[in-house]
Amino acid sequence: MDIQKIMIVSPMINELKEYIEQYNLDKEIRYLTEDKLTEEDLEWADAFCGFQIKKNTDYSKVKWVHSLGAGVDGFLSGRNWDENVLLTRTVCSFGQRIGEYCLSYILRDAQSHQRFAAQQGEKAWNAITPKLLSEKKAVIYGTGEIGQKVAGILSVFGVKVYGISLSGKLKSAFNQVAAIDSHFSIIKEADYVVNTLPLTDKTADLFDKAFFEQVTEIGFINTGRGKSVDEAALIEAIEKEQVRFAVLDVFREEPLPASHPFWEHPAITITPHISAVTTAREAVECFIGTLNKVEAGQVLENKVDIQKGY
Amino acid sequence: MDIQKIMIVSPMINELKEYIEQYNLDKEIRYLTEDKLTEEDLEWADAFCGFQIKKNTDYSKVKWVHSLGAGVDGFLSGRNWDENVLLTRTVCSFGQRIGEYCLSYILRDAQSHQRFAAQQGEKAWNAITPKLLSEKKAVIYGTGEIGQKVAGILSVFGVKVYGISLSGKLKSAFNQVAAIDSHFSIIKEADYVVNTLPLTDKTADLFDKAFFEQVTEIGFINTGRGKSVDEAALIEAIEKEQVRFAVLDVFREEPLPASHPFWEHPAITITPHISAVTTAREAVECFIGTLNKVEAGQVLENKVDIQKGY
Repeated sequence: MDIQKIMIVSPMINELKEYIEQYNLDKEIRYLTEDKLTEEDLEWADAFCGFQIKKNTDYSKVKWVHSLGAGVDGFLSGRNWDENVLLTRTVCSFGQRIGEYCLSYILRDAQSHQRFAAQQGEKAWNAITPKLLSEKKAVIYGTGEIGQKVAGILSVFGVKVYGISLSGKLKSAFNQVAAIDSHFSIIKEADYVVNTLPLTDKTADLFDKAFFEQVTEIGFINTGRGKSVDEAALIEAIEKEQVRFAVLDVFREEPLPASHPFWEHPAITITPHISAVTTAREAVECFIGTLNKVEAGQVLENKVDIQKGY
Repeated sequence: MDIQKIMIVSPMINELKEYIEQYNLDKEIRYLTEDKLTEEDLEWADAFCGFQIKKNTDYSKVKWVHSLGAGVDGFLSGRNWDENVLLTRTVCSFGQRIGEYCLSYILRDAQSHQRFAAQQGEKAWNAITPKLLSEKKAVIYGTGEIGQKVAGILSVFGVKVYGISLSGKLKSAFNQVAAIDSHFSIIKEADYVVNTLPLTDKTADLFDKAFFEQVTEIGFINTGRGKSVDEAALIEAIEKEQVRFAVLDVFREEPLPASHPFWEHPAITITPHISAVTTAREAVECFIGTLNKVEAGQVLENKVDIQKGY
């Protein structure tokens, strides 16, 4: 594929430009923030690179769209994607980033950080024995690149790690993998449940009342998409001690509205969608790598399967 | 060595007894709390097993003393140990435990747990990009079994790990090891400094004003002994931003007195000497393993070198 004219559309165009210019590409490149993007730009461009495309935007004259994020629901939802347009996504250090994010909160729990902080406030010296991770079981939803990396990190500590995927096919980092249609068979013993799944028809509202009724006192970590969680069911599950605590990086509506009950819930930790931040440097590395492969007609590991949605 | 009569002296004798009885030892065993221990008991026993021996207690009729903790300063300080009495110490999962403890607080920092918690209190949605551990440098004081395990755990994440030891001899888990007499050469670049050293003449007050003047904005984690830290110098180092935060599991006086300024210091996290808790099961496994080797005359990896003090 011949790519000469590239639109880079992002809130962080200055940083992206700095890194892209280091590659001395022999291309025409326009850098714009999302609000400045016009139809004319899209008619001009061979390739579009950004976090999403606004609804009702005609992208069909572009040959290639590259997502600066790992998730592409911002491109696919609400439209039938024109399969003549190649769609790729950023796959970089997300697995490592999400792995360290998840591990940090699992260790916060196992090491009783919050209880020790509360004791310190009372100047109380009461021993609580930290739990070794080798005593724990985790279930990871998603056994792709990200899920495997999370599983690999937890396995280093002897955590027993189970996976849930569409196919149920065993991957090396997992003790066992179950298909999403039969996941209830595997989650009853979980200490921690981590969601890394993309948002698709299959994963929307996956973590609902029926799911939470299968688990007991879990730590629930969502780094996938907010729309995979029934929020009212999650709050009810905490009340019923099905969920001991939740760490949420993604929400149905982002930023999370100030009126939302999650903010003040003592068992819920909120982070502002930062578990898999794309740094400008990494985003550019992935984009340039993909561009080279697109031009050379090589196999693209980060090509989106439009039917699957990731 | 023939061991028939064993004194087990501990606050947790009930749990120890439960595990020891599973071994069906053909020995006479007395279980006592520390306050009940008499001279008669020590005259009767071949072996003493406990966390410490009170000052002015004559232990010289015992053949073997086994420490239920990893540190033996409670046995050696204030007396010239009779080298006819074998002294061993518990070496079990301490390395793994201290490793997970240290990693949990390093990740708390890299993942900005405390800043996100503060933001949540204000319902503020402000992205802070977590730092990958591969961007970080750590210096571990102590390159023995515990220090190596801590280094190994951090290395999994690509942390650059440097060690400080008496000899400066390179050990496999470290990028580089320096001798304690020349440690200033290695600490200037550190993001995190972890102390795992035992308390000896060489390590008392090691972390003093002169040390803290060598570092910039470090996270300081002490899992060794409280007496290795000049507490006033640490507070001054935080004021001068030489230390960004401190996580302290050990103190000069334990429990930490209620009047101590550490309790209310916003940059200091206090845990009540739990980073390397000996669980009853592990303590018994180590004791029984050592007993078998003592009786068989085998090499003891956990024999204390009285001159070195560990």
